[in-house]
Formats: sequence, C-alpha cells, structure tokens
Amino acid sequence: IRNLTSKNSVADDMRVLLNVGGVRHETHVATLRNVPNSRLSRLADMHINSGRGKQEYFFDRHPSVFNSIIDFYRTGELHVPLEVCGAVVKRELDFWQIEELDIKACCWRHYRQYIENQRILGSFNHSLQREQMTVDLVGLRGWKLWQTKLWLILDHPRTSRAALAYGIVSFLFVVASIAGFCLETIPELRPKVSYNISSASCNGETKTIQVVMASNTALNVLDFICTVFFTLELVLRFVVSPEKLRFVRNPMNIIDLLALVPLYVQVIFEQSELQACYINERFVIEIMFILRIFRMFRIFHLVKHYQALKVLVYALMASLQELLMLFIFLLIGMLIFSTMIYYAERNDSARPDSEFNTIPIGFWWAIITMTTVGYGDVTPSTPVGYIVGSACSICGVLLLALTIPVISNNFTLFYEHVRSRSTSPRKKEEVEEE
Amino acid sequence: IRNLTSKNSVADDMRVLLNVGGVRHETHVATLRNVPNSRLSRLADMHINSGRGKQEYFFDRHPSVFNSIIDFYRTGELHVPLEVCGAVVKRELDFWQIEELDIKACCWRHYRQYIENQRILGSFNHSLQREQMTVDLVGLRGWKLWQTKLWLILDHPRTSRAALAYGIVSFLFVVASIAGFCLETIPELRPKVSYNISSASCNGETKTIQVVMASNTALNVLDFICTVFFTLELVLRFVVSPEKLRFVRNPMNIIDLLALVPLYVQVIFEQSELQACYINERFVIEIMFILRIFRMFRIFHLVKHYQALKVLVYALMASLQELLMLFIFLLIGMLIFSTMIYYAERNDSARPDSEFNTIPIGFWWAIITMTTVGYGDVTPSTPVGYIVGSACSICGVLLLALTIPVISNNFTLFYEHVRSRSTSPRKKEEVEEE
Amino acid sequence: IRNLTSKNSVADDMRVLLNVGGVRHETHVATLRNVPNSRLSRLADMHINSGRGKQEYFFDRHPSVFNSIIDFYRTGELHVPLEVCGAVVKRELDFWQIEELDIKACCWRHYRQYIENQRILGSFNHSLQREQMTVDLVGLRGWKLWQTKLWLILDHPRTSRAALAYGIVSFLFVVASIAGFCLETIPELRPKVSYNISSASCNGETKTIQVVMASNTALNVLDFICTVFFTLELVLRFVVSPEKLRFVRNPMNIIDLLALVPLYVQVIFEQSELQACYINERFVIEIMFILRIFRMFRIFHLVKHYQALKVLVYALMASLQELLMLFIFLLIGMLIFSTMIYYAERNDSARPDSEFNTIPIGFWWAIITMTTVGYGDVTPSTPVGYIVGSACSICGVLLLALTIPVISNNFTLFYEHVRSRSTSPRKKEEVEEE
Amino acid sequence: IRNLTSKNSVADDMRVLLNVGGVRHETHVATLRNVPNSRLSRLADMHINSGRGKQEYFFDRHPSVFNSIIDFYRTGELHVPLEVCGAVVKRELDFWQIEELDIKACCWRHYRQYIENQRILGSFNHSLQREQMTVDLVGLRGWKLWQTKLWLILDHPRTSRAALAYGIVSFLFVVASIAGFCLETIPELRPKVSYNISSASCNGETKTIQVVMASNTALNVLDFICTVFFTLELVLRFVVSPEKLRFVRNPMNIIDLLALVPLYVQVIFEQSELQACYINERFVIEIMFILRIFRMFRIFHLVKHYQALKVLVYALMASLQELLMLFIFLLIGMLIFSTMIYYAERNDSARPDSEFNTIPIGFWWAIITMTTVGYGDVTPSTPVGYIVGSACSICGVLLLALTIPVISNNFTLFYEHVRSRSTSPRKKEEVEEE
Ligand SMILES: [K+]
Ligand SMILES: [K+]
Repeated sequence: IRNLTSKNSVADDMRVLLNVGGVRHETHVATLRNVPNSRLSRLADMHINSGRGKQEYFFDRHPSVFNSIIDFYRTGELHVPLEVCGAVVKRELDFWQIEELDIKACCWRHYRQYIENQRILGSFNHSLQREQMTVDLVGLRGWKLWQTKLWLILDHPRTSRAALAYGIVSFLFVVASIAGFCLETIPELRPKVSYNISSASCNGETKTIQVVMASNTALNVLDFICTVFFTLELVLRFVVSPEKLRFVRNPMNIIDLLALVPLYVQVIFEQSELQACYINERFVIEIMFILRIFRMFRIFHLVKHYQALKVLVYALMASLQELLMLFIFLLIGMLIFSTMIYYAERNDSARPDSEFNTIPIGFWWAIITMTTVGYGDVTPSTPVGYIVGSACSICGVLLLALTIPVISNNFTLFYEHVRSRSTSPRKKEEVEEE
Repeated sequence: IRNLTSKNSVADDMRVLLNVGGVRHETHVATLRNVPNSRLSRLADMHINSGRGKQEYFFDRHPSVFNSIIDFYRTGELHVPLEVCGAVVKRELDFWQIEELDIKACCWRHYRQYIENQRILGSFNHSLQREQMTVDLVGLRGWKLWQTKLWLILDHPRTSRAALAYGIVSFLFVVASIAGFCLETIPELRPKVSYNISSASCNGETKTIQVVMASNTALNVLDFICTVFFTLELVLRFVVSPEKLRFVRNPMNIIDLLALVPLYVQVIFEQSELQACYINERFVIEIMFILRIFRMFRIFHLVKHYQALKVLVYALMASLQELLMLFIFLLIGMLIFSTMIYYAERNDSARPDSEFNTIPIGFWWAIITMTTVGYGDVTPSTPVGYIVGSACSICGVLLLALTIPVISNNFTLFYEHVRSRSTSPRKKEEVEEE
Repeated sequence: IRNLTSKNSVADDMRVLLNVGGVRHETHVATLRNVPNSRLSRLADMHINSGRGKQEYFFDRHPSVFNSIIDFYRTGELHVPLEVCGAVVKRELDFWQIEELDIKACCWRHYRQYIENQRILGSFNHSLQREQMTVDLVGLRGWKLWQTKLWLILDHPRTSRAALAYGIVSFLFVVASIAGFCLETIPELRPKVSYNISSASCNGETKTIQVVMASNTALNVLDFICTVFFTLELVLRFVVSPEKLRFVRNPMNIIDLLALVPLYVQVIFEQSELQACYINERFVIEIMFILRIFRMFRIFHLVKHYQALKVLVYALMASLQELLMLFIFLLIGMLIFSTMIYYAERNDSARPDSEFNTIPIGFWWAIITMTTVGYGDVTPSTPVGYIVGSACSICGVLLLALTIPVISNNFTLFYEHVRSRSTSPRKKEEVEEE
Repeated sequence: IRNLTSKNSVADDMRVLLNVGGVRHETHVATLRNVPNSRLSRLADMHINSGRGKQEYFFDRHPSVFNSIIDFYRTGELHVPLEVCGAVVKRELDFWQIEELDIKACCWRHYRQYIENQRILGSFNHSLQREQMTVDLVGLRGWKLWQTKLWLILDHPRTSRAALAYGIVSFLFVVASIAGFCLETIPELRPKVSYNISSASCNGETKTIQVVMASNTALNVLDFICTVFFTLELVLRFVVSPEKLRFVRNPMNIIDLLALVPLYVQVIFEQSELQACYINERFVIEIMFILRIFRMFRIFHLVKHYQALKVLVYALMASLQELLMLFIFLLIGMLIFSTMIYYAERNDSARPDSEFNTIPIGFWWAIITMTTVGYGDVTPSTPVGYIVGSACSICGVLLLALTIPVISNNFTLFYEHVRSRSTSPRKKEEVEEE
C-alpha cells in the first residue's frame, strides 16, 4: 500500500518528525538532503550519522512558512505562502538558510510587495519624524523660554491653541496677499489714469512699471499691510528660530524672502527716482516680474496646516524614479511624433501656411495631444498628418495608462497609511510630541 | 541534536504547550516573557512560580491569529495573518493584551483595510436605515389612517402598487416639466411675434420679460398643468406628512417650493401690470431667472426611485475629505500655473492682445487644462507659455491620477455592498420594512 | 492556572473535542450553545443530555472554514476565512446551519466576490455554449447532408479548413464593400461631370440622387460585385439554414438584408425612371441614406471571427445595469450643468451672440465637457460661466472615475477567463464541438 | 450522536486516516471513491480489498492543498486554496491525478493568475537573458582580445567605466544631433539669404533642397561633426562586432545607417551638381525627407542605457494581443461613428460647407473624439450630429476604460519584477555577466 506514495524508496524508519512551533511535519530523511548547505540538510546528515530511528525535532519557528520550506525540499520549487507577510517569509528563509532568489517568479511579487511597502513606509515615517522634535520647556528660563514659546507659536500651528490661532491668521494674510495679487491684474480694478512720474522720464519704459504696479488704492493698502506683516513675521521667526542655519536653508523661508524683494525694490524706485536711469531698466523689470511670482508660492505655507499636501510631496519624492520614467517616455514620444508631424505636414510648397513649420511647435502639439488635452490651436490637416495625429493620441493614452498605475501606487499607500494611523491612538501622542 | 534549534539555552522542562482552540503550539517559557504586560507573559511568570514541568494550557480562541501572536513573542515583530479579517485580528490582539500599534508597517494596510471598510459600511448602513421606518397601520383609525396611507403613497414609492404607480406618474410630470423648460429656450419653438403689454410700458426693459416668458401655446399649457400638479402635490404632501418639521427641513421640498415661485410671480406680474414699475425690475428678473433653475433640480426626485443615485450621494459624502483634497490640489495647481502663464505670456508690449491679460483668466485655463478638457479658447503662444502649458497638463494628469483612486474607493465599496446585499434574501424584508 | 482562560466558568469535563476533517478543535460545551438553531447547538444539547464526559465528534467537512464557524460561536461575530473561496464558505455555512447574513460587513465583499464571479461567469459560459451545437453528420444523407455541410462552411468558420477559407473570403468582401463605401464619399474619386437623366426631370431634386450615387467606375464595379456576392450569400445561407426562424431572427442577417436594399432600390430607380416622380422623393432619399449606413454594420461579421469582440458584447450585456447608471449620472449632470450654463451666460442683452442661447446646446456642451473631450466649439465667456464650466469638468472627471471601475470589472473578468481557458486543454474540444 | 454527521451510512471501521505531510485528514473510504481514476480512489479500492480496519496512509505532499483535494472528494466541487500559489496547486493536482478543468469558475482566476505571471515573467527573463552573454577574456590574444575589449566598450555601456564613459559621450552626440535637427527647422536660425547654386539651375525645384538644408553655420558644423562621429562609430562597431550577421540584423544599426544616408546624398548633390538634373528630383527629395526622420529614431539608443524603456518594449510585445484588441475596437468604433456622423451632418443641400463632407474625415474626428483628445477642428453642428458625437465620446471613454486595464497589467508586472529584482543581490552578478 505504501507503494502509492511517491518516495517509497526510502525505508520507513528513515522518516523524521519535524515539530515546527507545535505543528508536526513528517517527511523522509532523503527529502531533507535535497537542498544542500541548509539547516535541514545538515540536520539530516546528523540524523543519519546518529543512526537513530524515527525521531521528533523541535523548532520554535513560524509553522505556516515551514509548509513552503518543506515543500521546497520535496519538489525543488520554492513558492511562498500567501497568508503570511513577505517580511515574515524573509526572516524564516534566513533562519532555514535558504536563498530568497530561489523563490519562483510567480510568488516573487507577493513576497517583495510587503518588503517594499515596509521599506517605503519606513523612509516615509522617518521623513515625518525628522520634522518632529521634542521640546522640553521645563529646563528653559528667561529669553530662551520666551524664544522657544514664540517659536512654537510661529512655526508649529498644532502645538497650542494660540499657535493654531496665529497659524490661521497668518494663512489668511497669505490668502489676502494672493487674492490682491490676482485682482491687481484685472484691468477693471486698476485706475484708468496712470500717473506719470515726470522726474523719471529718462526713457519711455519707466511708464510700464508704473502702469503694472500702480494699482487700485484698496489693493495698494492691502499690499502694504501684507508686506509689513510678512516682513515682521519673517524677522521674528528668524530671531526666535533655535537653529538659524536650518531656518536659512528652508526653501519656504527663501520664498518668503524673495516674495518681499519686489515690494522693497518698488519703494526704492519711487524714493530714488533718478537711480532708475542708471541701471538697465528692462532687466530689472524682468527680474521683478519673476520675483513677483514667488508671492504665489506662499500658498505652500498650506503644507504646515494640511497633512495631505505633505503626503503628496513625499509620495512624489518617493516616486521620483517613476516620474522620471513618465517624463522620459513623454519626451521620446514628443521627439518621435513632432518629427513625424513635421514631415507629414511639410510638403506645403503650395500652401506655405502649415501650422507645423518647425519641429519645436510639434513638441507642443505632441505633449498636448499625448496628455489628451488637445487644445486644437495647432492640428494636422493632411491625410498623413491625420494618421500621425491618431497614432500620437493613442500612444499618449497608452503611455499614461501604463505608467500612471506605477506612480499612483506610492501616493495611495502613503495616504491610506497616514489616514489609518491618524485614527489610531498614537496620533494624539504625535501631536503632543510635535 | 537540539543544538540546531535557536533557543537551546532554555532547559527542556521549561517548554510549555499552548492549546489554542485545539491547535497545540509548543514554545519555551523564556519566549513568552519577551513581551511584558501581556496575558502570556503573566502566564509565564505564574508557570515558573508554580515550578511545574511541561504542561498544557487551553485557550478557547482563534487558532490562526495565535500563529502571529506567538511569532511576535519569538521574534519581536508583529505581522498579521493575511487569511483572517483585520477585525478578528483586532479582537484577538485585545484578548492577548497586545497593542495594535506594534503591528509592522507592511501589514498595517491589510489590518486596517477591513476595519475601515466595516466602519464606513456601518455608517452607510446606518444612514440607509435612518431613512427607513416601520409604520403600523393596525392601530390607526379615521383621519390618521387615511393620512398615513396617503403619505405612504405620496412619499414611499416602494410600499405598494398604488404608491409605485403614483411615483411613476409624478416622475413623468417632473420629466415633462423639465422637457418643457428646456424646449422653451429654443427660439424656433417661441412664437415669433412678441406681444407688447402697452400698460406696462414704464420703460423698455419690461419687454425682455415678455419675450423670454411668452412661449409657445403648447408649452404654456404644459407649464400650467405641471404647476397645478406640483402645487397640489406639495400641499397634499405637507398635509399628510406625519412630521411637519422634518418635511420643512427636507431640501427636496424646499427646491419644490422654490421651483413654483417664478410661475406665481409671473401670474402676479401679468395680473397687476402696473406694480411692475414700482419695484426694481432688473433685480426681480435676476431672482426669477435663478429661481427657474430650481425647476431643474426636481430631477433629484429620481433619488427616491433609483438606488445607485443614493449610493453616489452617500459615497461622495463619505469621501468628503478626499474630495476636499482634490479641490485643494486643483486650487494650488490653478494658482501656481495661472501666475506662471500670466508672466510667461505677459511681455507683450509689442502685442497687447495676449489672451492671458489677467490672472483670473489663467484660473479658467489652468482648470480646463488640468482636467484635460482643453477647450483651446485660451492657449499659450510663446515658447515659455508652451513649457508652462505642458507642465500644467502633465501635472493635471498626475494630480487626477493620484487622487482619484482614493476617491473612487468608497463608491465601489458601497455600490458592490448594495448590489450584493440586494441579491441576498434580507432585501425582501427591507422593502417590506420601508 | 486555568483562571487565565476566558471561559473558566464552565467545568473542565464540559469540554468537547470536534474533529473536523482531521483537525481537532477543542471548545467548551457552553460556547456551542451561543448560536441557537444550528447543528452544533443541537449537538451541545444532546451532549449535555447524554451526560458523557469529554468526547470527540467527527465531521467530514472542510477544516479551514470551521475555524470561522467556531469563532462565531465563541465571539458572536462571523468573519469568513480569506484563504478559502466564498462558494466553499457558503456551502459550509449551509451545512452548519448558519445564516450568511450573519457575516460582518468587513468580510462580506470577499465572501460575495467569488459567488458573484461564479454566477456571472456561469451565465457567460452558458451564453457561449448556447451558440455551440453538436452536429452529427453520420446519420444524414442526400440533400440533408449537403445542406448541413454547406451550412457549416457558410456559418461556422472554425469547423473546417474550407469553412475558414470561405470565412476569410467573405470577410474580405465585407472589408472591400466598406472601403468602397468610404471612398465613394471623397469628392476626388467621384467623376466631376454629373450625368443628367433627361427623362427623370420632373423636378430638380432628382439630380441630387444622381450626384451622390453616380460614383467612380471602379467603385461602381466593386459595388456591383459585392452586391452580387452578398445577395448570393444571403440567399444560400437562408436555403441551407437548418432553423429558418432562428436565421430570420438573427440581427446580423437583418442587417445584411437591409444593407442590400438601397442597391436594389437604385436599380429600380434607374430602370423605371418615370416612377421616381410619383413617390415622395425626398422621403425615399432619406430612407435610402439611412439604409446605406447598414452596410457599415457588416463590420460586425467580425464577431464570428474575433473572440475578443464577443467578450466585449457579453461584458457590456452583463454590465447593463452599470452602463445604465453611467448614462443616468451623465444625464443628470447634463441637465443640471446645461441649465446652469444657460443662466450663467444668459444676461446678454448687450451681446445677443451668446453661444449658449438655448438649453439643448448646453446639453451638447455638458456631455463633451464631462467626457473631457472638450471640443471648444461652444465655451463659456463670463466669470460665472467659467465657474460652471470648471465645476462641470471636475464633476465629469469624478463621475467617470467613480463609475468606470464598476463597469470595467466584468470585461476584465470575462477577458481573463476566456484567455486562460483558451490556453488550457479543453479549448480543443470546444472547437471540435462547435 | 454520530448520526449528526452527514456520511453516517458508512461503517465506522471504514474510516481512513490520510497523513499528508504530517497533517492528518480523517475521512470515510466511500468519500475517496467519489472521483474515479484518481490516486485516492485507487487507494480506496485497495483498502477495501485488503479488508483492513482504520489505517493511516502517509503522503509526503503539501498539506494545505490537500484540504481542497479532499473537499473535492467530499462535495464534488473543486475550489483551490487562496493561500497557496496556483503553480503549487497545479503540481499537487497532477500528483493526485485530478484534472485542472474541474476547478470551479470562481477560483479559476486565482489559480491561473500565478501560472500566467510565471509564464509571462519566464519569457521576459528569457528575453533579457538572450541579450546577455558571458565573455571570457582570458583565452583571447592579440587582435581578438582588442576586438572584444573594444566591442564591450562600444556596445555594452555597463561592463566597465570606460564603456560607461564612452556610452555617455555617444549618447550626448545623439542628443546634440537631434537638438541640431530640431533647431534647423526654426526659421529664425536659418540664414535668411538662401544661396543659389547657379550650375544646378535645370529647374526651379533645386532651390527647395537648398533652402531646407542650407542652415545656420553653427548647425552645419555640428551636423558635420556628428556625421563624422556616427560614421566612424558605425564602421568601428561593425569591425569589432564578433557576430556580423547579428549586427546587420539589429534594427538599431539599420536606423543608424539610414540616418547617415541623407547627409552623404547631400554631399554628393553639392559635389556633382549636374547629376541632380538627371534623376527625378521630386522623388529624391521625398526619400531624403523620410530618411531624415530616421535621425530622430537614434533616440532609441537610450534603450541601452535605460532599463525602463526595455521594460516598456517587452511589455508592449507581451501585450500584443491586447493592443491588437484595442486597435480593432477603435477601428470598429471609428467605422461606425464616421459613417453615422457623415449621414447625420450630410443633408446640407442648403449649407454645402459641412465639415464632414467625406467619411475619411469622419475617421479622424472619431479617433480624436474616442481618445478624448477632442481638438475641435471638425465638430458636428446638427442636432443628430450632436447625439452621434456624444455617443462617440462616451463609447470612446468606455472602450479605453475597458481595454486599458488588460493592457497595463503586463507593464506593471514587468516593471515591479525588474525593480524588485534590481534591489536584490543577484543584480550585481547580472551586471558582471553582461
Ligand atoms: K480633451
Ligand atoms: K480639447
């Protein structure tokens, strides 16, 4: 009857009983010798040498994973159990001295997935914790105490009610500043009569500055109040900051500083009107225009208040490799399709008004087509151009569809991690720690 | 031979046998002392104090989860079993007095997922049940009985055949009203000759009302019939409603009332034509135009008939936090890109016809680009503008791709829950209850 | 020491041993009485009545599911094991006389998913098999034999090499017919001089027919050959069809017939030119134009050859409820947003050229925006219109994102099922059967 | 009491104990006879014939899968365990002599998924390994050694630091060449005065070549340097290639060669100006224009350096069937909707300026609508056209949503496989091998 079993060549007394965490696995000694240089193969050798009969060996290890281990000895194929986390499997493989690369391709994804998630969530938690710090107010006195208290209020909106109130006020100023900045550009809100500064009439371009900047009185007042507030805040935050170097390196503070520059430059211009003639005005206007953009980046102060934004930033940083991949794929698609559309739409000796008269305009068209935005400001108009355009739109859909699941993975992982952790008790401690 | 096992420092007689729900787990007593302040560590202390040898302890608990628990004692890492629902794990952790925060990050998602689903489905079921009520017709007599019967017919289309028939008739009236409302705006269906009310000729604007409202005879008749029906229905439903306060608070009833207002205002206008001159006509027209929109919201009466719409509403309510996140991300993207496109397209002293002459027009462009709609009514036309536009479209694709899986999760969960529950036997009871 | 266990109120001799498929579960008798009217509660009653001590009961059932069953007795919460298919759980629940509605919401999805898949794949397999039939050529003689053989060749391209060859030829004719049909509409391929039939000059409209239909000679010849082929094929297929009623009911055959009509009508027109004056020509042209479209539907002959198309058709049919949901959601969105855009863009007494001068044009705009196509042929131009437009585009993205995962589920399921089954050995038999 | 069990008709002594890998399964002998022609049914026959009582049979097999096997004997339904990889299930089914087609539809997907992944990852790994080769530099001397060393440097950028440096230099040349090629087409970078070759004045068309090709001096120099470099590189790589046939067959080398042709043709043209008159110039220009496109394909040299691009190429190749499906679905949609829009927009005897005056223009419109790009260069303008357009956009969204998850599967699988393998130790060996 034993003939039915597959390994009947081994004598009955050569069976061993392996008790792994209370679960008994029976197997033939010969089976254990199938994987050389592992813990069990050495046990088998010892067992044979000792010459004893059927005997039980006890291992205080995870019993589920051992099913896969013993299966590897029996069949030579290492599949991992799907009911156990990959990290547990890794630990057990290390104990049983089996290489993780022996795992078959079909189970590899399940095995690595948990380990990857642990690694990426570990670095995410590490990043979050690096921002946190424990402050001990007990040991401080005098200026140090006040400095630390003020610093907590100014920079850490979740530490106290006062800090939260200040944080909201500060953020409302940011919103007001941005709103003013946007409204400024609407012609209806600007006074129609642009005042001419007669003394600055070295050339006609000075007016341009005046027209753009000379805005509605209400907006001017708002601008002034915001400027004063942000200047005071930045100075105060620098003064109370316990680590000046870290403060200076923080990109948010640099943005805050740069956002203040154009306002002071404007004041200088208005005060010393004759200086305006000496420096290259066109260049100054360019720089000031660019610096004015930095005012908009103050919106990133929201990161301090809004957890999800922090998650987005870390998720994008963790997916940097995948984002790079998306950009490279789009770049290649852009190069190929812009060249093809240029040649498809080119032979317009008859009609010299082809919209694709250069390859770089094809870059724009290809990107806008591949992201399926499709403005239609430049569109092909020849049969070959139609084919290239169709190929471009289908390729774009495919490229996005293929790469985006890989990118969105990390965000979903981080977001769900943060959300589920925030509903668990430790959250409260974290807030206190912060 | 025992030397092969990892924990051989402990004497053999210090092994304990833990029988958890019939499955025997063998381990060393020392292992059980690894996690302090837990049920098993106290058992270990007692066992040592009692001085007895190898002994079996019986626990009437889930055997699968105990694999992970004992593994935590052995290795210090708490991974959850993937073959068991997270809620079971939570219960067992509570019994064994182990903190859920000891669970490693890799298993956390699996662990919380089921608990989250249970929580969110629980509140969804709770919302659905709050709408249901059991009505006992047996104890009622006279007016009360009639009131309740009529109320069931008018407000609960699934309680009886009469109610269903009435519900369909009522919904057809809604459809007819909306169809008439839409057709009214088509110039071909309006009589070309607009009749002038000579007595209301205080100023020329009165004609505007007439032209818009004086519509085709057939549409006028339809409008009149619908108005009469909806008025009667609203009055009747108010009269028979057992809870007047709840009726008044119901947003659907407020919409129904507001949708009736413009029709009665029109009648008043036509009756007392001279009054039209006294009040500010332009303002009245504005209000009436807005009130006419409410007629369209009658489409939400469909919620009473169509389960999936209810699922959508609850799913959006449950995903409020995620929707807010999407809006904040789009808002930030909108602010950044509108500013950038404004400055990229700005230096048009030569060509003053730039499409992006204000930042708010950039808001529109950025939103339409980021949702990949891309109308093309405003498009960049400078090289820097092309780069900003490309960045905007790619960011839009990424933002949507990252946040939407998080949002769609709840809808899929609710929809599948409702669909699978509706095919199970309890469904019938629910309908009867309703 | 037993005091540590949770159920120590029960005397030791009241413990029972349940041997389920070889796995021993130990529990207290009191535990088994927690769920009334179940198989185990009745066993517990009998055990107490018998007055025997600790005893083993054997059940020849699935041991994994019993973990959950006994856990339900212990804790009152029914969670299903995730390592077992829901259909197995259902069967075991039936055996142990436990209601499936006792399953907690968190595990419900896992439990139903497999049962749903089995149900939907079952009906899909059923549909596929209904098309198949076993034909026994042995018993046939004479005409019957020839008829069946021809019928197999004409209608079932996978039954023999001749049938496949004929199928390919037939499909090439379809492709040629469609190609000709498309090329016909290109002005360059039509002869510029349109011939006038002098005898049919009852009114000027007769020329319109001629211009449209009088096409290139090569295309005319192709059209003639295809017409002859399709006529012969249809007649032959009808003659050899063993079930005439089923043949007549088949929508593909009706399309084939209707696609032939316009060609014969044209011949009749050309032959009896004077008749053209008697019937309402404009109406005839309309009908014939519509009938010509049916030629395009011949592309669905591809279903016979291409498995994936069949999968698509069945998946859409199985997802009918979800498709309806998508349409209703789009319809509601369309109604709401078209009304809002109409009122947002309306107060154009100054500029009477608003693009949204009727609500139905808003329907078109809303659909094209919600599907993120965004042609830009009609776009809002007022600030309120911009807000409505932005809301519409975001709602569209959300609606599609929420409903599409629910729809695409069935297609993926069917596609993977068909693909994985086609690589397994049974496939061969199926082909033979067909 | 045994009466409670379902199989009580069988005498107690007919129970058998199956010890599968240490786990004991008890069952009735009758149960084992339910599946004929299997290993266990034959065991049951033998057991009955032997006439022995309750006895234990030992099988050295996977215990988890046996749960499902014995469940199949008990109930006639074969469900697979979800905690074990499908490949293990397949192996065990083979051992127990049970057909895999007996697996129920609900479990089929889980079962095949791992086997499919193993198959597809196996062929992917096979493709990657075919590119690798082990080179033994020890046995080589003289020219052979130099040839092999140079070949490694030129063709395998990861074999040494010199090879990597050369690879980067080579790729920078590619980038420079492409950049020059793109900038060449910008009118501002071309010298406005186009030089006329007086001797080649056979007809006016010769100028066309000159205008296009006569570019900026800096670009001309860049072009010259790149041409020299690529020519030398191609010659050198051919000379040192150990397998000339494989070199010639490599599509990248053919692209490199074709990209060089137009530059040499230009030189020939300029040298032998009179020859230009003899050959058909228009045709030559066409060919040269097309050949110039090949320069852009040099971007695919990036495949050598960028792993993700290789993954994309293999994923698309592995998803060829699914891509074909997407194309066929889009093709069918294109044919149907272009015909419908042609007829919907056709009856413009009044307005002969319909944008859809041919069906092929409808092809373009349908593709651009179905991919949701929606340029808006051709849009419907009749009510029926609006309906067709809406249907087309919704169908497009559905088609993409249904087919894309099936396509993106392979890319995600390959990408995650490559990424997780690259972080494991074997990676290092692979690089060395290469
Ligand atoms: K679009
Ligand atoms: K568009």
